[in-house]
Amino acid sequence: MTSVATVNRQVRLRSRPDGIPQAENFEVVETALPEPGEGEVLVRNRFLGVEPAMRGWVSAVANYAEPVALGAVMRSFAAGEVVRSRTADYAPGDQVTGMFGWQEYAVADARAISRTVPRDDIPLSAALGVLGLNGLTAYFALLEVGQPKPGDTVLVSTAAGSVGSCVGQIAKIVGCRTVGITGGARKTQLCLDEFRYDAAIDYKSGVDLGAAIAATAPNGVDVYFDNTAGAISDAAYAHLAAGARIVVCGTASVSSWNPWPLGPRVERYLLVKRARMQGFLAFDYAARFPEAIVQLSAWIREGRLRYREEFLDGIDAAPDAIAGLYRGENLGRRLIRLP
Amino acid sequence: MTSVATVNRQVRLRSRPDGIPQAENFEVVETALPEPGEGEVLVRNRFLGVEPAMRGWVSAVANYAEPVALGAVMRSFAAGEVVRSRTADYAPGDQVTGMFGWQEYAVADARAISRTVPRDDIPLSAALGVLGLNGLTAYFALLEVGQPKPGDTVLVSTAAGSVGSCVGQIAKIVGCRTVGITGGARKTQLCLDEFRYDAAIDYKSGVDLGAAIAATAPNGVDVYFDNTAGAISDAAYAHLAAGARIVVCGTASVSSWNPWPLGPRVERYLLVKRARMQGFLAFDYAARFPEAIVQLSAWIREGRLRYREEFLDGIDAAPDAIAGLYRGENLGRRLIRLP
Repeated sequence: MTSVATVNRQVRLRSRPDGIPQAENFEVVETALPEPGEGEVLVRNRFLGVEPAMRGWVSAVANYAEPVALGAVMRSFAAGEVVRSRTADYAPGDQVTGMFGWQEYAVADARAISRTVPRDDIPLSAALGVLGLNGLTAYFALLEVGQPKPGDTVLVSTAAGSVGSCVGQIAKIVGCRTVGITGGARKTQLCLDEFRYDAAIDYKSGVDLGAAIAATAPNGVDVYFDNTAGAISDAAYAHLAAGARIVVCGTASVSSWNPWPLGPRVERYLLVKRARMQGFLAFDYAARFPEAIVQLSAWIREGRLRYREEFLDGIDAAPDAIAGLYRGENLGRRLIRLP
Repeated sequence: MTSVATVNRQVRLRSRPDGIPQAENFEVVETALPEPGEGEVLVRNRFLGVEPAMRGWVSAVANYAEPVALGAVMRSFAAGEVVRSRTADYAPGDQVTGMFGWQEYAVADARAISRTVPRDDIPLSAALGVLGLNGLTAYFALLEVGQPKPGDTVLVSTAAGSVGSCVGQIAKIVGCRTVGITGGARKTQLCLDEFRYDAAIDYKSGVDLGAAIAATAPNGVDVYFDNTAGAISDAAYAHLAAGARIVVCGTASVSSWNPWPLGPRVERYLLVKRARMQGFLAFDYAARFPEAIVQLSAWIREGRLRYREEFLDGIDAAPDAIAGLYRGENLGRRLIRLP
């Protein structure tokens, strides 16, 4: 049984950033260890998530969720271990994931817990990445919205990222040709070596993106999986195959929607190719997460689905961790690892 | 049996227009009546189509089809009557439609004939409109791509047009609320009185389009059927309901795609609402045209599907007829009627 500390350390939101959240927008605070009430558990966090989406969570303007309040513990996904329980549903020693926040210990009720993670051969940290929202997003966005068929050419933006790398590999598993777009020589090599894309394009290399897509997808793009909504997408839209499916999963390249940015009109691309463009949100598929986790786990064990993690050690690493993501430091799913 | 003339009059393409085809781009020429060869029929045309798409057909840049050659008979849909036959598949007196061109008589083989039209209570001219590509486009674009459900709000641009008016009425038949957008007071009234939209918006009235859509679709737009790809669409995209479907059927508001026009980026609208945007081309559903014609005919007979036609008499009216469409002269499906 894990020993339990007497104090809890938390990362709280001190001020709202103007743009990307920086270390100075947070503070690390020591507080008393909380006690679980009736129906609650005390979780000792082992891994905390660091997400691009956190930028939206700390913005004053609500996006999908309410903004994190000033002075509140930073919202985050986390994975840990139940150390005290006042509910029959969970026992000490259970591994769980949930929105436990950037803190060492969290009191959580059943609603805050996403799932129980079996103690098996796959590390707990994977439950925050390839077996968490990243992998689930890739799985449902590609298979349900993208509807890839064997022989299709699947183009992936953010191809080396936690979601994109999973999309590329699942596309291979279902029999597609894959082309990845990423930034920089290291990530391009990673796409080819680790995630086994059939071709990879480095958009930071000064290459003509349209020409590069045309060369690597000579029969057109059947499925375009996108997390960017910018210049990469505009190049991709001009190279669709008839009946193409565009999966709109994120808009990372757009720094602000006020004023609303302009882009080349998509209607003619969609019309001429009878193509489809569709927005995706993973939570719409929540009822089917368990089946996907079973399948993703099997692919991991078979060596067909690889993932990369990058750990920052200790809660003091958290405040600067989001800014680091936007600096492009990481080469895998970024997590804060707690002792 | 219809009497057969000894001469044929044709409208030929004399020069390529710079923009919208004008009367001076065509010439009417008198030629000898052609003789059908083996496997061919001679058709006496009764109705000739006049389409916005003809602008693309006479452009030097191929769109879906090869451009009409200079000096060639203007390509068009037509409906007429077989007057001579050298094939067992067709007999004199048969009513047929096909790509017979802007001419009084046409020699056609089986490939050029779209279908045989029964002599019944629905006039032959309908085979070029509500029972032709207009109605078929409305039927498949709305039902297959739009996938309307009872209670949905369906927004239609070009709501009083040959396709849009049909979309609005089919949407009512399947239990939707309908909102039509059209230009001018007469067409707006036509939407309400003739095509029974639940609400109609006159985009030429100086109204704030976004506010008008919000007011007439207070729960958001579930299906947006579009033929415009311009400012009307940009307003509609901002008022989608969750899970909305956008049917991209035409781009009439875009006068040129060179340079490619810009518009507000659609990705965020699609993402936030998990909406879908899809291009439609009627010919993809050609194998199912017969079933749709049976259904559309039944709705016409039941008085649930109304259509308007506007006839210009005689082949000499053809050369100026396209320009007239773009001047917005017509209040219904425009056809050239031949004696």
